Amino acid sequence: MKRKITLKQIARELDVSISTVSKALSGSKEISEDTTQKIQAFAKLYNYRPNNIALSLKNRKTKTIGIIIPEIVHHFFSTVIRGIELVANKRGYNVIVGLSNESFTKEIINMEMLANGSIDGFILSISKETLLKQDYHHFNATINQGMPIVLFDRVVNEVDCDKVIVDDFKGSLKAVNKLLSTGCKNIALITTMDYVSVGRLRTQGYLEALEDGKINADANLILKIDDSLDVEGHLDVLENEIEKFFKSNKKIDGVFAVNELYAVTAMKVARKLGFSIPDDIQVIGFTDGVLSKHATPSLTTVSQHGQKMGEKAADLLIERLELEDEESVEYIGENERNEHFKTVIIETELIERDSTK
Amino acid sequence: MKRKITLKQIARELDVSISTVSKALSGSKEISEDTTQKIQAFAKLYNYRPNNIALSLKNRKTKTIGIIIPEIVHHFFSTVIRGIELVANKRGYNVIVGLSNESFTKEIINMEMLANGSIDGFILSISKETLLKQDYHHFNATINQGMPIVLFDRVVNEVDCDKVIVDDFKGSLKAVNKLLSTGCKNIALITTMDYVSVGRLRTQGYLEALEDGKINADANLILKIDDSLDVEGHLDVLENEIEKFFKSNKKIDGVFAVNELYAVTAMKVARKLGFSIPDDIQVIGFTDGVLSKHATPSLTTVSQHGQKMGEKAADLLIERLELEDEESVEYIGENERNEHFKTVIIETELIERDSTK
Repeated sequence: MKRKITLKQIARELDVSISTVSKALSGSKEISEDTTQKIQAFAKLYNYRPNNIALSLKNRKTKTIGIIIPEIVHHFFSTVIRGIELVANKRGYNVIVGLSNESFTKEIINMEMLANGSIDGFILSISKETLLKQDYHHFNATINQGMPIVLFDRVVNEVDCDKVIVDDFKGSLKAVNKLLSTGCKNIALITTMDYVSVGRLRTQGYLEALEDGKINADANLILKIDDSLDVEGHLDVLENEIEKFFKSNKKIDGVFAVNELYAVTAMKVARKLGFSIPDDIQVIGFTDGVLSKHATPSLTTVSQHGQKMGEKAADLLIERLELEDEESVEYIGENERNEHFKTVIIETELIERDSTK
Repeated sequence: MKRKITLKQIARELDVSISTVSKALSGSKEISEDTTQKIQAFAKLYNYRPNNIALSLKNRKTKTIGIIIPEIVHHFFSTVIRGIELVANKRGYNVIVGLSNESFTKEIINMEMLANGSIDGFILSISKETLLKQDYHHFNATINQGMPIVLFDRVVNEVDCDKVIVDDFKGSLKAVNKLLSTGCKNIALITTMDYVSVGRLRTQGYLEALEDGKINADANLILKIDDSLDVEGHLDVLENEIEKFFKSNKKIDGVFAVNELYAVTAMKVARKLGFSIPDDIQVIGFTDGVLSKHATPSLTTVSQHGQKMGEKAADLLIERLELEDEESVEYIGENERNEHFKTVIIETELIERDSTK
């Protein structure tokens, strides 16, 4: 077997970025004609075939689903994978997992590696760096070559495919309404930076709930955490940041946090500052993981139903793969196909525990 | 490209198990000559090549490491993967993850899928079902075909390869000694069924510590939990089982649990029964995950250093892969090669928090 060249090797040889190679090979207009020609010629010389996905798809089915997640140490993504696996196994498919580690380049490398004959289709959640760059050419190129993608949780309009999302907006609306209905007047929001779509939607839900409750939003009551603080080892930094926030906003009587780590850390800090939960401060989180169940007091939270999301995503992908089998003899126009794309919304649920009244 | 037949398809066609096919193709004597001939003939007819690993290895390096873990919703395995990834990325390798879901058959299927040209070598932890069956032919066949394996955490003597383990025995010795030195007289052990090697070693450490402390072990103070109760949704069952255990052993003043979920659940049940922690009952867990840090009181625990295990496993595998590159011209005898295999022991550490005196 002749050694096949990879995107990474082409990029290194020509001293350009992997993204540039990827774009040039898919004929993107963002790249200059000169560069595109150079890259395409080099790729041809070394047998790189941008359309090898389509070739391999015609000839075999691997019965394997490729999953790409941004982070492995993350309860939510784990439960989504469990859901995908459950349905995949039932329907005779295997799964294989790649990790983007929140990196745009790693996302491209992993997709190239898996798409290269190992899998029939992708289920994936977009990396933070990709969301920040707003560069989605690698998803669209993969879809155009005939390999279906289902996006879950972190999705964007710019990619036309089946999607599974939770209703982040309504979820936080429910949470903040609960805090309002139990008497909170100064509800703080602990959230992520804006470019992460779920953080943005949850922030919108918070603002809308306040407006409905005729309460003016106060920018001082919104704490935006740099996401790199999620990881272990930075827990102290997270704690300090939340402590400073509480100290400069003494009237806080309710907290809505966009994930359970922030919520549990907020409870810890509040306790340390002498507040009692839920009497002085009520707290609600998002994502129902082990931390929420085992915290003291146990945490009221908006459940995303990760497993259900995974099950639904696997159903959508397998249905599309098997539909394509049936339809492969007749031509389907691009638009006609796109009309079939579904966005499934998984309803969130407010699970009430002891951190609220 | 001609469609390649898989182990699963051969098994279905001939109405035998995947394991039988796998053994027959690797020439195992456990399978009758008749069956072996039938399976080998069928495989040949449909172009299944048991030695395609060796073929593909000669011709290309994928620079990808295949990881197979028994369970995805598991903090320890996640941190090991993070460690592998860290080192792999630094040394120019990618990783890809397959899940055995604690199933023997899925372990074989995943290994076949990944070994088929996608990866250069494996890092894996053995599934519970494989340990129960004590059937390790698929690991040995893979190694004999020239693809290196590094086993971590759940390892066995029957497979000759590089291994990374934590010192489970010494880890629990430290934990129980801590309980003894702070005055506990009736120390309970909450553990798993015996066939999981780590559970067994931790149990041995517990017994040895008691013996050193001149305390007779009491079989009534050992609770063996059916592992299927680990999963969410069965938390109530786990709680009930531990509650029954406490009620029928009222003198318990210390608990050592072989994982953090059992430890945190034990604290919850103890509190519910009116005991104060650590005054009435001290508790120590194993594995330092998010639950331990965020429990109330925070849990004293034996840290396994999952990330360090992953880093070490990746180093061992990459060293072997790169050593093989250098040595590929000269012949190395089987025994000579085996002498190079290393078992690296990662030291455990007792992290003292508020659940002990």
